[in-house]
Formats: sequence, C-alpha cells, structure tokens
Amino acid sequence: MSRSLKNLEEQFHRIAQIDHALTFLGWDQMVVMPDGGSAPRATAMAELASLRHELLTAPAMLDWLDSVDAELQAGTLPVASTAHVREMRRTWQQDIAIPAELVHARVLAGSRCEHDWRTQRAANDWAGFLNNFRTVVALSREEAQCRQAHASGQYATPYDAMLDVHCTGDSQALISDVFGELRQELPALLQAVMDQQSTVRVPDLTGHYPIARQQALSEALMRMLGFDFSAGRLDVSMHPFSTGVKGDQRITTRYREADFADALQATAHETGHASYEAGLPDALQSFPVGRARNMCIHESQSLMFEKQVFLSRAFGKAMVEPLHTHLPTTSNVDSDDLWIAQTRVKPSFIRVEADEVTYPLHIMLRYDIESALINGAMEAEDIPEAWEASMQEYLGLSVNGNHAAGCLQDIHWSDGSFGYFPSYTMGAINAAQLAASFRQTHADWQDQFASGDISHLRHWLSRNIWQHGCELESQELMVAATGEGSNARYLIDHLRRRYLDERD
Amino acid sequence: MSRSLKNLEEQFHRIAQIDHALTFLGWDQMVVMPDGGSAPRATAMAELASLRHELLTAPAMLDWLDSVDAELQAGTLPVASTAHVREMRRTWQQDIAIPAELVHARVLAGSRCEHDWRTQRAANDWAGFLNNFRTVVALSREEAQCRQAHASGQYATPYDAMLDVHCTGDSQALISDVFGELRQELPALLQAVMDQQSTVRVPDLTGHYPIARQQALSEALMRMLGFDFSAGRLDVSMHPFSTGVKGDQRITTRYREADFADALQATAHETGHASYEAGLPDALQSFPVGRARNMCIHESQSLMFEKQVFLSRAFGKAMVEPLHTHLPTTSNVDSDDLWIAQTRVKPSFIRVEADEVTYPLHIMLRYDIESALINGAMEAEDIPEAWEASMQEYLGLSVNGNHAAGCLQDIHWSDGSFGYFPSYTMGAINAAQLAASFRQTHADWQDQFASGDISHLRHWLSRNIWQHGCELESQELMVAATGEGSNARYLIDHLRRRYLDERD
Repeated sequence: MSRSLKNLEEQFHRIAQIDHALTFLGWDQMVVMPDGGSAPRATAMAELASLRHELLTAPAMLDWLDSVDAELQAGTLPVASTAHVREMRRTWQQDIAIPAELVHARVLAGSRCEHDWRTQRAANDWAGFLNNFRTVVALSREEAQCRQAHASGQYATPYDAMLDVHCTGDSQALISDVFGELRQELPALLQAVMDQQSTVRVPDLTGHYPIARQQALSEALMRMLGFDFSAGRLDVSMHPFSTGVKGDQRITTRYREADFADALQATAHETGHASYEAGLPDALQSFPVGRARNMCIHESQSLMFEKQVFLSRAFGKAMVEPLHTHLPTTSNVDSDDLWIAQTRVKPSFIRVEADEVTYPLHIMLRYDIESALINGAMEAEDIPEAWEASMQEYLGLSVNGNHAAGCLQDIHWSDGSFGYFPSYTMGAINAAQLAASFRQTHADWQDQFASGDISHLRHWLSRNIWQHGCELESQELMVAATGEGSNARYLIDHLRRRYLDERD
Repeated sequence: MSRSLKNLEEQFHRIAQIDHALTFLGWDQMVVMPDGGSAPRATAMAELASLRHELLTAPAMLDWLDSVDAELQAGTLPVASTAHVREMRRTWQQDIAIPAELVHARVLAGSRCEHDWRTQRAANDWAGFLNNFRTVVALSREEAQCRQAHASGQYATPYDAMLDVHCTGDSQALISDVFGELRQELPALLQAVMDQQSTVRVPDLTGHYPIARQQALSEALMRMLGFDFSAGRLDVSMHPFSTGVKGDQRITTRYREADFADALQATAHETGHASYEAGLPDALQSFPVGRARNMCIHESQSLMFEKQVFLSRAFGKAMVEPLHTHLPTTSNVDSDDLWIAQTRVKPSFIRVEADEVTYPLHIMLRYDIESALINGAMEAEDIPEAWEASMQEYLGLSVNGNHAAGCLQDIHWSDGSFGYFPSYTMGAINAAQLAASFRQTHADWQDQFASGDISHLRHWLSRNIWQHGCELESQELMVAATGEGSNARYLIDHLRRRYLDERD
C-alpha cells in the first residue's frame, strides 16, 4: 500500500477517535450533565477541537494528499480509492481554509451572540441582538471569503463556500433552481389546502399521557422503524437530536404530558437520522468517505421516516395498536383521527411548529436573507424589513414588530451557522423523490406500511443511500437512486397527494 | 514566569483535557452505553490513551522538568512551586518508566485474562485461569522491575514500585509495619465480637422496596452528606463507583429490591470519594499537584462517609425519618434496629461482602500473596495453597477447593492491578484516625450527626485533607491532620468501641 495513503489513514483514524470523544461528550452535555459541568466540559471540548485541528492541518498532510493524488493520476493507486482520497482532501481543505485566529474570533463572537440571544429573544430586543450579530456577520463573511479564496474557483459566490460546509456539493445555483419551482406553486397549493381543510372536524387528541407510557410508545415506534436497541438508546433532551457512532446511536426526544403526537414525530425523525448513520458502510468508517453525505441527504432520511412513513395513512393503521396498548385512554382514536389531527395546515410564525406545507416557505425566506447577507447584498440591520415582506408575501402574516416570533426565533444565525437552513427543504424534496422511486418498485408499499413493516424500505435506502457513504457527490447519489437530481416536483406531488387528494 | 514551567503547564493542561474525555467516556461505558458501543469505544479510548502517553513523554518534557528543578534550586522559582514541580515529575516518571511495548503487552494479557476470568470464576477453573495469569504475573514483574530500575534507589522492592502507582508514597515497609499490629489483634477481637453478638436478636429488615423509592432515599442521604446535585449525579451500575471532575461528580450505586441497606452503604461510600474530588483545590486543578493524594487517602474519605458517619449510631438516628418517608413499610424500624442489622460480624469467604471487622483480614491475606508474587518469593501456582492457609489462620474457614469463593473472586489481579488491595485497609485505618482527630475538637459530634448535620466534619476534612491535593506526601498529610502517620491503633480502637462497647 502507498506509504502516503497509510500515513493519511493513520492520521484520519486518530482524528476519528477524537471525533468519537467529542460526539459522546456532546451527548453527555445535552442529556445528563449537571450545570456544574459546563465550564470544565467547554474547556475539554475546546482543547480536543484544537488537537483535532492540529492533526488535520499537520504540515505533512498536504504532501501526503498531493502524493496520493499523483499516485491516482499515475495509476499506482486503484481507481476505487478516488472518492476516499477526494473526501480526505475535502475535509482537510475545509479545515485549513480558515486561519486559526479567525476560527477563534468566530467561536468567541458566536458564543457571545448565542448566549445573549437567549435573553434577547425573550425580551424582543432586536437592537441588542444586532449589536452582537453585526460582528458574527462580518466574521462569517470573512470566513466565506477565506473559503472561497482557498478553493480557487470552486465556489461561484461566498455563500457557496458556506453552503459547502453543511450542504456539501449542493451549490447556491442548484438550490435556487430547485427552490424556484416550489416558490411558484406553494402559495396557491397552500390556499387550496386551507380552503379544503376549513370544513373538516378535527379530532381533539389532547389528554393526560404519562411520560413513562409515552416513552414506552416511542420505543415501540422505534422498534417498528427498525431501530436496534443493542446498538443505541433513546433519551430526553430539550431539543430532540441524533448523534453517535456505528454501533452506538443516541437519539433524543421530549414529551408533553398533554400531547403524544409531538414526541412520536420527533422520535420518528431522529430514528431516520440514526438509521442513516447506523447503515453507513462498515469499511472505511474511520474516514471521511465513510461518513454521511451532507445535511440535504441526512435530512432526507429523517423526513423519510417522519413524513413519508410515520405520517402516512398506511403506517397510521399500524400505529393504532401500540397507541392503544401504551396509552389506553386513546382507545377511541382510530387511524383516520390520527391522520387528520397530524396533517392540519395553517400559516404560522414559528418554523419549528410549522406544518409540512408551509415549512418550505419558512426556509426559503431564510435562504433568501442569509445568502444575501453572506454575499454582501444585504446588511444585518435590513433583516427585519426583509423578514416582514417575505412573511406577508409567502404566508400572508405580519410579524408586526414581534421579532421573537420573527427573525429572532432561530438559534442558527446567532452562532454563524449560515448555509444550514436550505438542507431542511432540500431534505424534504429528496425524501419525497426517494419515496417516489421506492414506491415504483414496491407497488404494495401501503400494505407493508399498514402492517408496520418498513423492512423493504430500509433495505432500499440501505442499498441506494446508506451504503454509499460519501462515495458519490450528493446529486450523483440522487441520480443513482432516482434517475435524476433533486427536483421539487416530487415534494409538490407528495403534498398534493396528501393534502388535496388525501390519499397518503 | 519561567518559560519551562509555562511549557510544562500547557502540556499538563492538555493532558488533563484528555483525562476529562477518558473520565466521561469511561462513565458512559459503565452506565449508559449499549453493547454495540463496546468495540468503537475501546478503539477510541485506546487512541486517547496513546495520545496522552505521547504528550506526557514528549522529548522536551525531561528538559523542561530538569530546567524547573534547576530554577527551584537556584531560587528563581518560588518555594511554593516545589510540590507542583515534584508531582509533575512524578507523573511523568510513572509514565516514562515503562516501554510502550511492555504497556501494550501488559494491556493485552490483562484484557485476555480478565475477559476469560469472568467465565473461569463461574466454572471454578483455576487451571484455565493460571494459564493466562502466569503471563500477567511475568509482565507485572517486568513492569515492577522497570519502574524500580528507572527510579534509581527510590524503591526498596519491586512491589514498592507497584504500590507507588496506587498507594503513592506509602511503601511496603510502612504498610507491613502498620498492618502488623492489626494482624496481632484482630483475630482475638473478632472472636470476642462473635461471642458477644451470638446472643443478640437481629431484626429482619428484608422486604419489598421499590427501586424508585430506594433511589429517592439514596438521593436524600447524599443531600444529608453534603452532595451538590448541581455539580453531580447519582446513577446505577453493576458495581458502584465514583468518577468525574470538579463541578461534575458522577457516582453510582445498585439496588436490591429485598434490601435497602446495601444501596445506602454504597451510596455513602461513593459520596465520600466524590466529596474528596469535589473538595480539591480550585487552583492548579489541571495539574498533578491538584489531584487526590493516593488511594489510601481516597479510601479513607469513602470509609469516613460510609463507616464513620453513615454506620454510626448517631447518624442512624438521623436516617430514621428519611427511611420512613421514602420506604413507608419500614415504619416499625428504629435506629437501634438499623444499627444492629448493619453491624453484624461473621467470617465469610467473599471480600466485598465482608463486615468491617473481618475485612482487613481479607486484605492482609491478599497483601501477603501479591507482594510475594511481585517480589518473586511466590509463584502463581502456589496461590491456592497460600490462600487456604491464610483463610484458615485468619478466619477459620476452608475454601475447600472452591476457588470461585477463594482466589478467583476478585477482578484486580486478572488485569495486573497489583499494589491496589492494601489501600482498602490503609483507608480504613486513616479514616478511623482522622475521625478520632475530628472528634477531639468537636466534642458534640454525636449531636451533630444525630441531627443529620455533618457540615463540621466536611469543613474539617476540607481544611485537613481535600484542600491539600498533592501538596504533601500521604504520611505528611496524616501527620499534619492527626499528629502522626497512619497507625492501626485507631482502627482497632474504633472496632472495639463499635463492636464490643457498642457505643458508636
């Protein structure tokens, strides 16, 4: 084996072990750590991140990377190593592109802004937020420019460089194109759905559902969805999330005593993320090529499990029995009630509470603003006005100066996570598109789902998505799985079928 | 500040952050990790241990250590730095003394022996165990000799070098001397206690105690003992343990449905360990001098909380109310019942189930054997015979070939942890001695304990033990706190007072 490749692999193996530590220290922090652990944990995680950075940007790395590239060109390394080598270089490049001082300044500014945001949001204090946020924007622009400069022509815009961190491989041009069709059709579709739903009697599912029973129900749902409890756990945290390594997937949800549906949707969603991670190829798992492709694909897996499976009329039939078993007071609830209650559509202010039809509009609003911000076409102080205009245009709502329900509602921008938002809607589109392909070869999918059996879907996803890791670029992966790149038409069709035809 | 000192401190700060990661990954492994996490966790922890070793033995370290020693000699570093510098060198020396290949061989042999031991113990398979164990002994002897050779005259025997890892500063000569008095007096004391207890009616405390209620009771006990739940947690694991960092102490216990006393004793014990760690000095906490002194002192703190506080007649009075509150079926149990049931003495085979009077005999038996093994005065195959002879002499019992209840019962030797056992009894001695000093200046200690108030004791321990970290050597610490080095007389007096006079 190539000496340089061996050196690279040893270095990335070591980096993967630091990532392992950061992963589980992060889980601990969100799930079990007492308050007193905050300061020592922050110190330890910062030091591990520095160690990781040092390993990833060690002076020999570029030599090794150049050397294996040359070996690939010369044919002395097998072609099968192409993606392996490409993804190691990509990981290295994303890390080395930003000077350590800029990383440090950005982390500091982001931490301060995020920390203060927690109180500023509650106080509707846009001016106070703006004061910190201007620095975050300035540093993120600098970061984007560094990334762009370092990538010699790879990125058409600075925002492309930020997108590449989260939506790796999906450019601003692509996303704008894909979102374009949605933008045209969604407002009319939304109006039609609301008109149709206005006459429906919605069953009231609120009640008193003890947490311990809801947890048993969530675990039952996870088992139906194929989660392996010998290789993972379900816990509780303030915001549901999924993390872990192959062999040990940790997901969380949160329970409300009055409402069981909320925890179940979050559980299904996170089980999708965890299934993707658990299904990544065994070989090369320490290396970048063995990891999940990007957040647009990751979110497609969580939304596949949440929206395409759990919320479907078919799977709802399978949910009735465990629901009645674990929450006996729901004995009068049938699968139609479940479906009707969970598919109500209504424009609202808060993204995380939005339904499936209005959610993409929340995302497009943010996408427009953050891309303009990073590309220098908008300033931070212009956000409230842009927000208000888009809310009126897309959802017919006025924030009316209540920024807590407007541009102060999300955590993402406060710490400089620009380029993440589009993955939610790219994920919804990819999920609908993948589901359409699966159904073409599994005509009896509704019978399968209705009997609580999603093993065929899991098998299909494993073969078409999970097992590929980062071997293909994201759009190549979509083409290989469905015959074409991400196409909003599939999401529109899905929404029509579910919300207008009420078939799904 | 000295450049070399600054370099050393930066390096040790970094090492402390890796220790932080290892600490909480270890907790996770014992408390929450699913089976599937074993392999990736082992890989990650091994890699972090390698990283730690590389940092600790980096080529520049010896230069820096020599340089700060010279600065101390020359008076250009303040005398106050003496212990700080001494403990950094000690930590470095313990790590650099053993060649990496020997560490690797020892870890491998220890893992295999420990792994197989789990089934061999159940099968009473001494011959099978011996087969692996010979290698463990050979490698441990090699380790001891390396440590001895590296320390140029510091250790009188190879076993001294192993002791120094766990009982740092307490030599074989010292421990043999301290144990000598116990060895002379305990058998007669044991006989007298048994004669006296033979006529006592022992209340039956067995019942059905739901785990959730026992947990609430354990938490109530921890609060009485001064545990701060904003800086720590109580969880469940197969074997109780304590770990964590300042600000985040994690202890565990385990519950039996039929018996509440067992979990409470373990909880009190681990709360003692955690209180020591939480009470270490804030300054220098990233450095060796800021850590706990050694296991003989550590165990003195856990036994202080378990034996000197929790098991005392006085504190038992304070336990009655929370006991009745959390376990209502104990409403007829009074503090005398509690005390009588928990202070029964009887020779038995299993160390971890032994009472306070016979426990030191179990330890001395092991101490005799392991010191002879490491010093080359005994071979592994001679252990069963030596065990049988000592059991008969010390406890009047015959193992009768049932090694599962004899020399196969403990995990310690299987992975080469020689030099650890004496800390249990040195800890019991130190605890009794510290308690005696505390009582001299707090004549009303029984009233304090009976009202559930141990704040004066905590304050005394903080000032005399916890706040010192590794500033003093262990025997210096005992002298500073009590006026003399470890002296078995205090444990003997305590046992007489509790088990013969029944006063305590």
